[in-house]
Amino acid sequence: MSLFITFEGPEGAGKSTQLAHLVRRLEAAKLLHTVTREPGGTPLGLRVREVVLDPALSIDPLPEFLLYSASRAQLVQGVIRPALARGEVVVCDRFLDSSLAYQGAGRGLDGDFLRAVSREATGGLIPDLTVLLDLDPALGLARAAERGQPDRLEQADLAFHERVRAGFLALAGEEPGRFLTLDATRPESELAGNIWTAVHNRLFRQAPA
Amino acid sequence: MSLFITFEGPEGAGKSTQLAHLVRRLEAAKLLHTVTREPGGTPLGLRVREVVLDPALSIDPLPEFLLYSASRAQLVQGVIRPALARGEVVVCDRFLDSSLAYQGAGRGLDGDFLRAVSREATGGLIPDLTVLLDLDPALGLARAAERGQPDRLEQADLAFHERVRAGFLALAGEEPGRFLTLDATRPESELAGNIWTAVHNRLFRQAPA
Repeated sequence: MSLFITFEGPEGAGKSTQLAHLVRRLEAAKLLHTVTREPGGTPLGLRVREVVLDPALSIDPLPEFLLYSASRAQLVQGVIRPALARGEVVVCDRFLDSSLAYQGAGRGLDGDFLRAVSREATGGLIPDLTVLLDLDPALGLARAAERGQPDRLEQADLAFHERVRAGFLALAGEEPGRFLTLDATRPESELAGNIWTAVHNRLFRQAPA
Repeated sequence: MSLFITFEGPEGAGKSTQLAHLVRRLEAAKLLHTVTREPGGTPLGLRVREVVLDPALSIDPLPEFLLYSASRAQLVQGVIRPALARGEVVVCDRFLDSSLAYQGAGRGLDGDFLRAVSREATGGLIPDLTVLLDLDPALGLARAAERGQPDRLEQADLAFHERVRAGFLALAGEEPGRFLTLDATRPESELAGNIWTAVHNRLFRQAPA
């Protein structure tokens, strides 16, 4: 019954909200699950998170990617693989697609290099389902700003976020079987329903009753 | 007149002492120089240093290597290349050979992968001279213990340190032109003289008078 689900998309697209909806449904269905996020999810990951999201630090794209990869490697080894081995549903807020979109498409790092490092960092682990909450970057930044002080990512310019969006959509286009791409401006309950249907399908090979 | 010099070897071999001797001679010779170290040397590197050397954190070999590589990429881009471009002598306490010896030979990570990541992290930058202070690990650990609380690296077992030593010596064997391998048990002044001769040779194509 193990299933590995990741949530991707820009800041402000509602990843946390939809992730919480999914977790409530998993709880209602009495399905064992582990919820985690990148960067973070382990003591090392939390320390890396503090570093990469510190607006006072100057971090070039390559070291930024390597820091995310370090957090990811520890998370896969220490949390995700053990939970999948116990037969749990693992839900992760951001995973390798964020590196490919942000550091690859967004910052211009070589995609093949990013994939090679990510393959080592994850031991080749690929999500069973990736929910992409797609949103116009201008809307996403406005939503994120409403929530308070923007972090380092959110301060980057709009053209960067346009490239990130295009990167996510290109990844979804390459693997339509893995990605569920949703318009993040749709009503919250509709999105939650779409996500639960996709999860349910993968768990039980049928849509929910 | 730019020259990139790295110091390598185990804890307790006297890297810091010999690095200080070299810096005094560079100052006496009125040669512009930059002294730095790994991990560290940049605001990002200092934060990474705190993380990787924290004995309370559990860090697998791969994320450990990725953290060092992140620090290295920022150091090369932000400090080492600019100093070399200004025509300075750059002296760095540890560089990529430490990753190859500690995470490769010591922890068993694949050398080709480490080299591929390091090539990206350094943009292909290779030291002009690498001083390897070779020391029996049992002696090195005893010396380090005298200096106080051992850090996470120093707590690892002796067999690990034996593999690291063999790794360093293998690297030196592959690139005899780059490495100056010295027996760290020789007198401090003799080692300092050997190192200065090698540096002087590379700077002026002749031994010091």
